[in-house]
Amino acid sequence: NMLSCWLSRLCRGFSTPTGRITHLSRGSLSRTLVLSSQRRIPEFSSFVARTNTCGELRSSHLGQEVTLCGWIQYRRQNIFLVLRDFHGLVQVVIPQEEVIEEVVGIKDAKTEALRLQYRYLDLRSFQMQYNLRLRSQMVMKMREYLCNLHGFVDIETPTLFKRTPGGAKEFVIPSREPGKFYCLPQSPQQFKQLLMVGGLDRYFQVARCYRDEGSRPDRQPEFTQIDIEMSFVDQTGIQRLIEGLLQYSWPSDKDPVVVPFPSLTFAEALASYGTDKPDTRFGMKIIDISDVLRNTEVGFLQDALSKPQGTVKAICISEGTKYLKRKDLESIRKFAADHFNQEVLPVFPKASRNWNSPVAQSILEEQRSGLIRLMEIREDDVVLLTAGEHKKACSVLGKLRLECADLLEARGLVLRDPTLFSFLWVVDFPLFLPKEENPGELESAHHPFTAPHPSDIQLLYTEPEKVRSQHYDLVLNGSEIGGGSIRIHDAELQRYILATLLKEDVKLLSHLLQALDFGAPPHGGIALGLDRLICLVTGAPSIRDVIAFPKSFKGHDLMSNAPDSLPSEELKPYHIQVSWPANSEAEKSSLNQPYCPES
Amino acid sequence: NMLSCWLSRLCRGFSTPTGRITHLSRGSLSRTLVLSSQRRIPEFSSFVARTNTCGELRSSHLGQEVTLCGWIQYRRQNIFLVLRDFHGLVQVVIPQEEVIEEVVGIKDAKTEALRLQYRYLDLRSFQMQYNLRLRSQMVMKMREYLCNLHGFVDIETPTLFKRTPGGAKEFVIPSREPGKFYCLPQSPQQFKQLLMVGGLDRYFQVARCYRDEGSRPDRQPEFTQIDIEMSFVDQTGIQRLIEGLLQYSWPSDKDPVVVPFPSLTFAEALASYGTDKPDTRFGMKIIDISDVLRNTEVGFLQDALSKPQGTVKAICISEGTKYLKRKDLESIRKFAADHFNQEVLPVFPKASRNWNSPVAQSILEEQRSGLIRLMEIREDDVVLLTAGEHKKACSVLGKLRLECADLLEARGLVLRDPTLFSFLWVVDFPLFLPKEENPGELESAHHPFTAPHPSDIQLLYTEPEKVRSQHYDLVLNGSEIGGGSIRIHDAELQRYILATLLKEDVKLLSHLLQALDFGAPPHGGIALGLDRLICLVTGAPSIRDVIAFPKSFKGHDLMSNAPDSLPSEELKPYHIQVSWPANSEAEKSSLNQPYCPES
Repeated sequence: NMLSCWLSRLCRGFSTPTGRITHLSRGSLSRTLVLSSQRRIPEFSSFVARTNTCGELRSSHLGQEVTLCGWIQYRRQNIFLVLRDFHGLVQVVIPQEEVIEEVVGIKDAKTEALRLQYRYLDLRSFQMQYNLRLRSQMVMKMREYLCNLHGFVDIETPTLFKRTPGGAKEFVIPSREPGKFYCLPQSPQQFKQLLMVGGLDRYFQVARCYRDEGSRPDRQPEFTQIDIEMSFVDQTGIQRLIEGLLQYSWPSDKDPVVVPFPSLTFAEALASYGTDKPDTRFGMKIIDISDVLRNTEVGFLQDALSKPQGTVKAICISEGTKYLKRKDLESIRKFAADHFNQEVLPVFPKASRNWNSPVAQSILEEQRSGLIRLMEIREDDVVLLTAGEHKKACSVLGKLRLECADLLEARGLVLRDPTLFSFLWVVDFPLFLPKEENPGELESAHHPFTAPHPSDIQLLYTEPEKVRSQHYDLVLNGSEIGGGSIRIHDAELQRYILATLLKEDVKLLSHLLQALDFGAPPHGGIALGLDRLICLVTGAPSIRDVIAFPKSFKGHDLMSNAPDSLPSEELKPYHIQVSWPANSEAEKSSLNQPYCPES
Repeated sequence: NMLSCWLSRLCRGFSTPTGRITHLSRGSLSRTLVLSSQRRIPEFSSFVARTNTCGELRSSHLGQEVTLCGWIQYRRQNIFLVLRDFHGLVQVVIPQEEVIEEVVGIKDAKTEALRLQYRYLDLRSFQMQYNLRLRSQMVMKMREYLCNLHGFVDIETPTLFKRTPGGAKEFVIPSREPGKFYCLPQSPQQFKQLLMVGGLDRYFQVARCYRDEGSRPDRQPEFTQIDIEMSFVDQTGIQRLIEGLLQYSWPSDKDPVVVPFPSLTFAEALASYGTDKPDTRFGMKIIDISDVLRNTEVGFLQDALSKPQGTVKAICISEGTKYLKRKDLESIRKFAADHFNQEVLPVFPKASRNWNSPVAQSILEEQRSGLIRLMEIREDDVVLLTAGEHKKACSVLGKLRLECADLLEARGLVLRDPTLFSFLWVVDFPLFLPKEENPGELESAHHPFTAPHPSDIQLLYTEPEKVRSQHYDLVLNGSEIGGGSIRIHDAELQRYILATLLKEDVKLLSHLLQALDFGAPPHGGIALGLDRLICLVTGAPSIRDVIAFPKSFKGHDLMSNAPDSLPSEELKPYHIQVSWPANSEAEKSSLNQPYCPES
């Protein structure tokens, strides 16, 4: 067994290096044999001295000379070592005339902050290697599908742009002209529509986008989306395109993606799941039981049903009495009370053992049997019941549905198959929402370029709050992984919506309106959140685990210490100065020590 | 001939639209026939109502129903029109029951500024469609080569980073922490080296990079590079990789790329072409004629040769007497005098007709015949001659060589074949240069991570200014299209170069030095300037013609008007305020009219 290894500098924990580049060699059979007989695609050993990766050596290589490159994983008394590369491990017997000075592996246990600070070490882990390599492969397959199979053109759009209307979450970049700023865009939305006007009728880009949301868990100030726009297309066309895209690019070690994906309207999703991004891997749907309980004597149900929009809703937790303890149900009631100011009652319609529930005693026998029929309740099931206005009642039960799923799984029930990927289209969203700060005015539910539903055009001029849009969301396992719409391509309609309905300053978008004036084809598109998608595919606990160099949840790069202080003279060319908050005069002195690491 | 057209909104010049979406239809033969018999890869008509592109209809489609989408290029009296899409043109006969209201094409003549302001119209031109589609295809082929054939991993690196040492050209981005700034990096250099430490041993990225150089012709504040890094590789490995990459991705309508590319050392390039990016499509090399003229009586040549580093250099312009007029030669002399303060003399060693040249009379017959032999001078050739220090003499003749090429081509001689792509490696650059502002100190010729040439390591500690580097440039037709190096992977050597030789603050790079401490494999890489490469491949006059939405040479987006003013309250979350220059108080008022377009 002939073996020749060219080893990189060795490492010990986080201290200084004590090893050195070493060349191990035994025997001298030609390595040409290996190269010619073992040619693979892709060829990981082209252009380098390496002939094989550590992971691919088999007994068939016996007697051949190979050259490997890697890190030392384990060593025993200069006799024996385990060499590691991204592809696997190999055992190496060390010729006794060679000496290796010191070898220690990388410590496993690290906090999250330590992992980010020493990111280059964390990247050596199997999981990070798997995540980043899978990400690269999936994106490559997506490109093949879009470019090579369907004639899309990969076009880069600028990231030094201007403020968009309402773009309060955009980073600003001072220019060398006093008082003039670029902004980093939240998406290439305007550019991709302008490309449609420009006759580039099948555009895509793996686009870097920016959003300054301050500190948010599991969000990144820069993120990546698969950004797509097409001319002459309708909603169904975009949906079939994306289903094909995911099916084509899906990793071969997962179950294949089944298309077409099911679809729910926004109204249906809210009624059945209490959310516009339902996790459809399990049932436990929300059911309207108003009719069954119309004559109830339970006070708060009576109150709710007597109001014009009043409803009673429930979810059925299968085998709830087996898996949930009394204190679980108490904590569920408390959660609803604390977070939604909403009363939620557990009912046990067929339970043999019964907890001391006030409602159980107040529900009549015919109501109980009505419930059992309507909700298909079986022995040991628990029903959670609430009352109130339709949307609010659905929202609270939607949240409890997910809480209960977590509880049941913590108790050992497998509710959500970890190998299952459950895609869902959600469609027919409202075009407008009442403004939070002033409910008498409207704002776009998504963005102002979204086209109204063709059936609702006339409502724009009479009851705009009732208009549905041609927006669609793609949901996977309860996470929104994409969203898009058919766009407005008529300049007059776009002007009416911006100026009359949304009261926006149309001057900010004059270039887009003028472009529509010059003849825009009908068009639409979508953007997939790549970080979130890869996170779900790999089962990673955080999007930070599918990004090579992520920021901490405070937006810091803990490895290089960004953002950092700058000497004030470096701000002069940009005609800006720092406005120090009154209570942070102390921090001002950091200008004199501009590069001290974050404590 | 059955034809059905779905037309987008029509357009007239730059004014308001006067057309509308129109549906034309004649006949009713099944279109399924077309779809099944004409299936192509890529499929440009998937997911839309269109069955064919305008450019692909042939007489074989006679009798079939097709659906087309496009713009009206030309119309004649509602009888006949020409429909255009990205793929070509088709003539359409309009059924007489249909009416089209107004159709006018896009004006051709536009200034550059107008082209940028109405970029979405300019994109419809054949040339812009060709350039952007070719760019997309070439990048896709590069990805296939790197990912699918050679196992590279496409990894995205952050663009919100920190200031790098000497990073005076980096845009700054204020964060929500007072006085703390991100910077937009000029390249992913640090990240790609950290990826090598992290065991991702074949990295590439089509990377967006940023450089704030103010107003520069044919530069962009954001640009794109094909960024590559490999472990366990040497200079030759990288060169073979890139040659294969360009050969594989080269457009099929051009002559194939021949590999390997020739190579010159930096010293050879300077001596023969007077530059480190020679245009090797034509000869006219610089020749040292010091020995021939050692005994000259011409005063300024005598002066030059009497100095220690003094040389006399010349280039030979083939058929110069046929193509160059006396005033051309006068303008060449004036150019050298004005730009280089250098005397240049034209000589006509074999010319039958002779201009009134003072030098011609001072050159002895034996010198004349020596020149003719050394430079292989033929009838009608002109020799340009200059004297002085080696580098300066080469530089001025290198510049004149290009000036003469332009002049000769303006006179009708084809010197540089427009279909020829002449690649060249330039290697063995100096590792350091004397600092411009303080020639007693050294700065990196490229960047401080470049490894020294293995033969010159010992010189680092004795005569560092003589050390050659393992940097390499890729030159195409006289433009630098790429550059890279083998990097330093030894932390001690990196520290010595940064701290002792370059006097840099190593704290700024502590994360990188620490990473090297933890065991970096030997590694190297390269970056290709994508915009410039595509510009040369397409023969575009400017990189603005291969970018969908470029900035003007002042860094402005003339379409959307970026950068733009911002109301000062939008700067508050970032703890900055504008420092208005004393002489521009008038501009301050623009804060009150934040969105007035650039005049």
